[in-house]
Order: sequence, then structure tokens, then C-alpha cells
Amino acid sequence: MSYQLAPLTKLIEQFSKIPGVGRKSAQRMAYYVMDLDETQAKEFSEAILSAHQNIHRCKNCSNFCEKELCPICESATRDQSVICVVEDVRDVSAFERTREYRGLYHVLHGVISPINGVGPDDLTIKELLSRMGDGVVKEVILATNPTVEGEATAMYISRLLKPMGITTSRLAYGIPVGADLEYADVETLYRAIEGRKII
Amino acid sequence: MSYQLAPLTKLIEQFSKIPGVGRKSAQRMAYYVMDLDETQAKEFSEAILSAHQNIHRCKNCSNFCEKELCPICESATRDQSVICVVEDVRDVSAFERTREYRGLYHVLHGVISPINGVGPDDLTIKELLSRMGDGVVKEVILATNPTVEGEATAMYISRLLKPMGITTSRLAYGIPVGADLEYADVETLYRAIEGRKII
Repeated sequence: MSYQLAPLTKLIEQFSKIPGVGRKSAQRMAYYVMDLDETQAKEFSEAILSAHQNIHRCKNCSNFCEKELCPICESATRDQSVICVVEDVRDVSAFERTREYRGLYHVLHGVISPINGVGPDDLTIKELLSRMGDGVVKEVILATNPTVEGEATAMYISRLLKPMGITTSRLAYGIPVGADLEYADVETLYRAIEGRKII
Repeated sequence: MSYQLAPLTKLIEQFSKIPGVGRKSAQRMAYYVMDLDETQAKEFSEAILSAHQNIHRCKNCSNFCEKELCPICESATRDQSVICVVEDVRDVSAFERTREYRGLYHVLHGVISPINGVGPDDLTIKELLSRMGDGVVKEVILATNPTVEGEATAMYISRLLKPMGITTSRLAYGIPVGADLEYADVETLYRAIEGRKII
């Protein structure tokens, strides 16, 4: 006799919806929840709701924040003339970790990808353009990923910004620091040669 | 400037508590939650609470169930004279999939493991012994895993049951069906030779 417990099945389903989580992992996660005590289960459940309800997009740059503006947009010490356009909120954290970049950000929340049904209107491109109005922004760094979709999105945005007299740039391509040349792919090596610098 | 969003950090922490989920995966899961819409986040949050509140241990065998007794213990068609003792609820599903075993189960919810601070009293051994009282049970199959802890637990329970006149047995060891002899480990091969059958 095989039998199903509806609440458990539902929980397994919820976990297996997470990208990269298979059926077996979802099951393991659901059983982990079953082993929690009452308080811990409540904490877990509330953490999901709380994160979802208290965190929203920054009115200016679409980064995640708790207030109306994110701490970066609110900061008086950041360079207001440069905007770094990224695909994802996690990319902001990656740039912030370098402690080098002092400008602002703009999070697209995706890339243009016709195959996945994502068009320009599904991203925050309109919001990006509206930030150009006051003439403060001089340069936009298009830091989308070096994938087909990322390149296409950068190109698309670049074409919209250029007529407004704004400099657009793209991150440098090349060999990652610490990598072995032997294992670099052809495209990366080609870009590294093309972008070589006189020393 | 690096900044932390408390509700997001909390959610990442919750996910990273799941065994086998690292920091990066937990982050990915938390961002997945952020991308859900209001209803979906509520559904996820409620699935955790609902599974935890509606599913509890069967009064008889400690398997998960929604009512007082699990469907297996409630069933009139199961053989009441055999109990298969397993470590985990998932093991019950594994046995049920064979559609061969017709007896009852008893879920220990762990194994004796001094290194992890798990003693006999942390398992459902007392509950197992109390099921022996009425003389209906003739055999107990000790189907804990073939690990050091699993073996020790089986041995421990066996010593408690034998004085009560109950037959205790252990699953057969050997080459798994479909496996390649070349890759079988020494211990398994030894057990397979030891347990060979005349054909």
C-alpha cells in the first residue's frame, strides 16, 4: 500500500519548484522541516513571508531595499554621474565587494531573451531611461553577463542611451585573474588578445 | 559600501540550516523566494506550517500520518505478526514500493550514535517494546542501515527482544541487483560469499 500525505506532498512540491532543486533534494528538505520543532518551523515560515513583505525594489535603481531608497542611492558619498547596469541584485553585491566602484547601480532584473518570452518591457529599462533626464549621469556601464542575451541587452540599451549623449561602456573581457591559460576557452583568449594593453 | 538586508539575511540563514544546503545555494533559494509573487510566497510559507502542524507521528509505529494511526497500522489486510524496524520514515516508502512486504513497521527516527549524542532513549525503542506485550508479534525485522551505527542499533534492540521470545532478523547482505562484481567492495563481496545460497 502506497499512500500520500497531502501536506507533505505539497511541501515537497514547493521545495522542488526552486530552480536547481530536484525531487530527491526537495524530499530531503521537506523531511528536515518535519524534524524541526514548532518554533523553528514557525520561524522558517515567517522568514519567507517577512523577506517577501519587507523587501522591495528601490524606487530609483530597483535594487532590493527595506526603505523607499536603497542605502547606495541614499548615500551622499557615491558618484552620481556613473550608473552600472546589472542583470541581478546579486551582481550589485559582487561589485560592492570590490570596494572600488563608487558610482550608482541599476538592476534590470533579467535580460532580454525572446526564447524565454522576456522583452525589454519586462525589465527596468524604462526606469533606467527616466534617470537620464536631469543631465547628472555622464556614463552608463553596461555590466550584463557576457552571454548572448547579456550582450544583446547591453547593445539594446546602448542604442537608446547614445542619442541622449551618454557614454556607454562594457566591462573588459579577458583571462580571469589566477586562471590557467591552457584552460581558457577560445573566445576568451581571442578577447584577451584583442584587448591587450601596452605595459 | 556593503549593506545587509535583515529579512533577506534571516531567510538565507533559514535555508542554509537545511543539511546539504550551502551558503550559495541558500542565497539562490532566498532570491527565488524574492522573485515569487505575493500568493506564491504565502503558499510556500503556509506549506511549511501546514506540513508541520497536520502531520505527526503515528501513535503505534511513529510513521508520519495525518490521523491518530497511519494507514498501514489501520489496515486490516496487513500481517500483524511481523514488524519491520527502520531508521527513517523514508525507509517505509522504500519498502512499500517493493509491494512485497505485508507486515507492519516501526520507525526509530534515528540510530544510536554516541558521537552525535543520540542514545536509545532518543529513539522510539520504548514504543517498540510496548508493542510486543500482547503476543501477536512473532518476528521483528531489524532493517536499520548496514552502517556501524545501524548494526549497533539492531544488535541493541535484538538483545532486548530475544528474552521476550520474539524472533529477530536482519536484511540479507550481498551484491545489489544489476551491480558489477568488479566494483563491489570487499566487505559486500565477503558478505555475499558468506550468505550464498544453493541453487
